[in-house]
Amino acid sequence: MFQSFAVTARPEQGPPRLAALRARLAEAGLDGFLVPRADAHQGEYVAARDERLAWLTGFTGSAGFCLVLPKIAGVFVDGRYRTQVKAQVDLADFTPVPWPDMKPGPWLTEQMPGGGRIGYDPWLATEKEIAEIAAAVGGAGITLEPVADNPVDAIWPDQPAPPLAPVAIHPIEFAGEEASDKRARLAKGLAEAGQAAAVLTLPDGICWLLNIRGADVPRNPVVHAFAILHGDGRLDLFIAPEKLDDTVRAHLGDGVVLHPPEAFAAALAALSGPVRIDPGSTPLRVIHILEEAGIDIARAEDPTLLPKARKNAAEIAGTVEAHLRDAAAMIEFLAWFDTAAPSGGLREIDVVKALEGYRRRANELRDISFETICGSGPHGAIMHYRVTEETNRRLHPGEIVVIDSGGQYLDGTTDITRTVAVGPAPDAARAPFTRVLQGMIAMSRLRWPVGLAGRDLDALARYPLWLAGQDFNHGTGHGVGAYLSVHEGPQRLSRVSHVPLEAGMILSNEPGYYREGAFGIRIENLIVVEPAPDLAGADPERRMLAFRTLTFVPIDRRLILPEMLAPAERDWLDRYHARVLELVGPRVGDAARAWLESATAPI
Amino acid sequence: MFQSFAVTARPEQGPPRLAALRARLAEAGLDGFLVPRADAHQGEYVAARDERLAWLTGFTGSAGFCLVLPKIAGVFVDGRYRTQVKAQVDLADFTPVPWPDMKPGPWLTEQMPGGGRIGYDPWLATEKEIAEIAAAVGGAGITLEPVADNPVDAIWPDQPAPPLAPVAIHPIEFAGEEASDKRARLAKGLAEAGQAAAVLTLPDGICWLLNIRGADVPRNPVVHAFAILHGDGRLDLFIAPEKLDDTVRAHLGDGVVLHPPEAFAAALAALSGPVRIDPGSTPLRVIHILEEAGIDIARAEDPTLLPKARKNAAEIAGTVEAHLRDAAAMIEFLAWFDTAAPSGGLREIDVVKALEGYRRRANELRDISFETICGSGPHGAIMHYRVTEETNRRLHPGEIVVIDSGGQYLDGTTDITRTVAVGPAPDAARAPFTRVLQGMIAMSRLRWPVGLAGRDLDALARYPLWLAGQDFNHGTGHGVGAYLSVHEGPQRLSRVSHVPLEAGMILSNEPGYYREGAFGIRIENLIVVEPAPDLAGADPERRMLAFRTLTFVPIDRRLILPEMLAPAERDWLDRYHARVLELVGPRVGDAARAWLESATAPI
Repeated sequence: MFQSFAVTARPEQGPPRLAALRARLAEAGLDGFLVPRADAHQGEYVAARDERLAWLTGFTGSAGFCLVLPKIAGVFVDGRYRTQVKAQVDLADFTPVPWPDMKPGPWLTEQMPGGGRIGYDPWLATEKEIAEIAAAVGGAGITLEPVADNPVDAIWPDQPAPPLAPVAIHPIEFAGEEASDKRARLAKGLAEAGQAAAVLTLPDGICWLLNIRGADVPRNPVVHAFAILHGDGRLDLFIAPEKLDDTVRAHLGDGVVLHPPEAFAAALAALSGPVRIDPGSTPLRVIHILEEAGIDIARAEDPTLLPKARKNAAEIAGTVEAHLRDAAAMIEFLAWFDTAAPSGGLREIDVVKALEGYRRRANELRDISFETICGSGPHGAIMHYRVTEETNRRLHPGEIVVIDSGGQYLDGTTDITRTVAVGPAPDAARAPFTRVLQGMIAMSRLRWPVGLAGRDLDALARYPLWLAGQDFNHGTGHGVGAYLSVHEGPQRLSRVSHVPLEAGMILSNEPGYYREGAFGIRIENLIVVEPAPDLAGADPERRMLAFRTLTFVPIDRRLILPEMLAPAERDWLDRYHARVLELVGPRVGDAARAWLESATAPI
Repeated sequence: MFQSFAVTARPEQGPPRLAALRARLAEAGLDGFLVPRADAHQGEYVAARDERLAWLTGFTGSAGFCLVLPKIAGVFVDGRYRTQVKAQVDLADFTPVPWPDMKPGPWLTEQMPGGGRIGYDPWLATEKEIAEIAAAVGGAGITLEPVADNPVDAIWPDQPAPPLAPVAIHPIEFAGEEASDKRARLAKGLAEAGQAAAVLTLPDGICWLLNIRGADVPRNPVVHAFAILHGDGRLDLFIAPEKLDDTVRAHLGDGVVLHPPEAFAAALAALSGPVRIDPGSTPLRVIHILEEAGIDIARAEDPTLLPKARKNAAEIAGTVEAHLRDAAAMIEFLAWFDTAAPSGGLREIDVVKALEGYRRRANELRDISFETICGSGPHGAIMHYRVTEETNRRLHPGEIVVIDSGGQYLDGTTDITRTVAVGPAPDAARAPFTRVLQGMIAMSRLRWPVGLAGRDLDALARYPLWLAGQDFNHGTGHGVGAYLSVHEGPQRLSRVSHVPLEAGMILSNEPGYYREGAFGIRIENLIVVEPAPDLAGADPERRMLAFRTLTFVPIDRRLILPEMLAPAERDWLDRYHARVLELVGPRVGDAARAWLESATAPI
C-alpha cells in the first residue's frame, strides 16, 4: 500500500522545538526566520529531511511557510488548509495566517514596527520570493538575511539523511528521444541566446533531459540532483554517487560528467557567463554564488521546462497505453463500488484501499501519482481532502463521492476524477453535476487558433455554471508529465496561465462544483493538445489545435439530467461512452464488463 | 448628409510633396522623418490640419504612418488597409509596408545600414512609440530626434487652421455628476497617489471631466484642449478662447482657469512634481518639457480613463433612450430595405443614404458615430469597408449585406451591426450566420465572477465558430462612450485586454465571420455591465456581473438555421425579439410595425 492514513501531526511537539529555534536565532543575532515547506528543488513533494515546516509546527500541508519572530510564529497557509492547520498546530504558540490574502511583507511590517533582521536559508528560497518580501518591507527597517547553516537543521537531532534512492534508466521506447540529442538541442538554444551555460535544479527537468527516473521523493519518480548544462552540450551532474550503478553511468555517457553534490558551489563559481538561471525556481544561493564570483547572469525560464512539456510521439503513445491500463483498473473498481457501496458498509479508507488494489493488480504500478482523494458527502466539498484514520467517514446511500486518483506507470502518469452516487443519485446534485459535465465536454470538444493560452480558454469550462450563478475556486486543468510529476508546468488551463498551448502538452480537464457542508463534484479527464484534425468548411490557412482525450472511464449517468444537455453534448457523451466500451471493455473481467456495458449505454 | 462618398485620394499629389519634404529634411540635416496619422490627442479622428499622412502620401486610412528616408518612403498600414493603400499612393515613390508584421525599428535597421538621424514631431508621438523604435534601432547607429517645427507643416502652403468649433455644455441630466464633483474625485485620487498634478491630453477625457462637448473632429463630439488637473481639484484648461461663450465660461466655473493653448508649455515647466502623465497617450513633448524643467514624473494611466468608462445611472439611462430612438430608425430602415432591396435596384450608397435619412428623421441626430459600413456580397468580407463612388456596388438578390452604423445623440452613442439578406437567404451563409449568432447570444447571456477582463471572456463568442474550424480576426467588442467616442478604452472584449470589467462599462458584442471574395457576417449589439441579478441556487457570497443588452433591433431570421440552436439559445432569441417588439413597436410607423411583427415572430 503506497498511501498511508496515519495521523502524523502531533501539535504538542511544536512548542519546545519553537523555543529551541528561537534560542538559536537569538545566538545568531537574528530577530526572525523563514521556514518554508520547500527543498532546494522547489517541488510539490519533499524528502523527509526537508519536512522542516511539519517538524517545527505540526502542519503537514503541501504548501505554506512559517515566519518565526520572538513573540509570534505565523503559519501561512492557503485556502485549502485553513481548517487543517488549526487541528495540526498548537494554537497557543503558532498563529495561522490566511495566505495569500495576508502576504509576508505586510505581516512582518505589522509585527515588527521597530524593524529587525529576518534570516532565511538561501538554498530553500527563490529570488522571486525573497525579492517580493524585501520590496514590501523595504521602508520598515526590516532586512532579509541569508544564513549559511539552517538553524532548524541545527536543532533537529534525528533529522533524516538526504534520500539515496537508486537511479533507473528511462527506456528510449518511452522517452522517444536520446538524452544526448536532448542535450544538444537545449545547448543549441543556449548558444543562440548567447548563454554560456544553464543551471538546472528542477528534478523532473533533469530526469527528462537525461532519460532517468528515481525515487527520492514520494509520488514523483524523480532524482534529486543539480546540473550545469554547457553551451556545447556537455553536462555536469552533481549527484550522490551511491545512487548510480554502472549501467546508469554507462547510459549517461561521456557527455555527462559526474560530481558529488558538495562540488556544486565551486563549479558554479568557476563558470564563465552569461549563466542562465530561472528566478522562479533556482535557489537564491546559486545566484549569490554566481554574483559573488562576478559571473554574468541571464534570467530566463528553466530551459527544460517547455521541451519537457511538449511530449513526443513515444511519450504520448506510452501515456495512451498507461491510461487504458489505468482505465481498466478504474472500471473494475467502479463495478466493485457499485455493488459494495449501496449497502452503506464502506468507509472512505476502504474505498481508497480497494482502488489502489485494483491499480496494483496488473503489477505495473510504480506508485500512485498522488494521495487518493475520496471525499464522501460533505467531505467532497473540501477540494484537497485526504482521508485519515480520524476523518474516515462512512458512505451513506443517496450521497455522492468524489474520487480523484492516479497512477505512476513506466509508460505514463494518470490522473482521473469521477464523482459517483452511492446507490440512488441525490436530486440536489444532478443539476450542478450536469453543468460540470457540460463544462468538461465543452473543453473536450474545443478547437482553437494556435497561440492561445490557458487564460484564453478557461472560461469555456465554467460557462454553464456561471449561467447558474455558480463557479469553482480552482483552475480548470494542470499540466501532467510522462512518468514524471502529475502537476507539471508551464502549461495550464487557468486564468493565471499566459503560456500558449502547444501540440504534445498533456493537461487535466477537471471542472468542479463544491457546496460547503453538503457535497462536492469534480469530473476529470486528461487531454493532450494536437493539431486539429481536418474539417470540411474550416477557414483555409487558419492553424488550429484541439484536445484529444486520454482517459476512458464512464461518467455516472445517474447523476446527469439529460434534458439539460444540448444535442451536441449528448452526442459527445454517447460517443465517449461507446469508445470507453470499445477500448477498455476487452481489458476487464466478465463482471466488470457487464457493469461497463450498462454504464456506457446511450443516455 | 454627414457621410461623404467622394474619392479624396489623389496619388499624383504625393511625389512632389515627398520631394519637397526630403529637401527640407536635408536642409535640417536629417536623414529621415516619421509622419504619423496622429495629432497631439492620439484620437481615432483628426482635424483636417492634422491629416499630414493623407496629404503627403494620399493614404486616408484611420491608422498608419510613413517613414520618409532619402531613397524610400515606407507607408506602414495594418491588415485592414493592405489593399486600400495600393490604390491610394503612388507606388513608384511610396512603398507599402505590412505593419505590425514589419515594425519600424527592424525596417529602419534594414534600410539604413549606415545609420542616420530620424526626426519626429514630439507633439505627435508618445513615449511608448518612440521608445519601442529607439530600442529596436539602438545598436544600428540610428538616432531618433525630436524636431521643434514639423517640416510637413512647413511645406504645406494651404494647411487648414486648427478647428475652432464652439464648446457646448453637456447637461447634468445626461452627465449625471457635476464637473466640480468629478474634479474633486479625481484630485483625491491624485493626492492619495502622492501626485501633485496630472496632465490631461485626451479630448474625450477632458470633455467627460468638464461636462462639455464640441465638434473639433468629425464623428466624435469632442473639444481639442489640454488640461492640468491639480491635487486640490483646480484645473488649468488650455483652449482657444474663440471656442467659449459666456455661458460655457460660467459653466466651467471658478475652479477652471482658462489659458490660451500657447501658454501650455510654460505652465508645464512651472509645475511642482510629481506630475502624472500617461506614457501611452501623452505627447512626448510634454514629457520633454517636464524633464527639461527637472520635474518629477509619475507614469500612470490617464486619470479620466476608468472613471469615464464606468457610466453612472444618468449616462446609462440616456444611452438606453438613445438606443430605443436609434432602434426605431433602424427598424424603419430595415422595413424599407426589405421592400426596396430584393428587386436588385439598390447600390451601397443608396443604402447608406437611406439609413442616415431615417436616423435624421427624429431631428435628434448630432452626427453619425462613424462612417457607415455597407458591405454587400464580397465587400462584406472587407471588415472596415467604406463605400465610395468608385466602389459603389449593386446589391444582388440572394446576397447578404453587412450594415454597421451608429448615431451620436445628446443622450448617448449607438453602434449596431445587422447582416441582412437581399431577398432570399443564401444557403452558404446560414450555418456561419447561426454560429456568429450563437457566439453573440453566449456573450449576451453571460454572467461571470467579478474581476475578469475581456481576455478571460472573449473565447465564449468564438466557441461555436471554432468548433467548425472558423474564427474572426478582430476583437469581440470595444468600449463605447456616452455621447463621446464610439471606440473608447480601456474596457474591451478582446484577448489583448487585461482590464477587469466593471459595472457601468458599455461595450459592443460583435462576433463576425468573413469569407474572402464571397461574403461577410457580423451581428452587433451594445451591452452594459451590471451586477448580476439575483438567481435562486447561485453560490452565496460569489459576486458576479452580467451584461444588459441596450440594442433592440431584429436579427434576420431568414439567415438562421433553427436546428443548430440549443433550446436556451432559441429562448434567448425569441425573448429578445419579443422585447424588441414591445419596446420599439410603439415608436415606429404602421408599415414598419407590420414588418416588425413578422420579423420578431418566434423562430
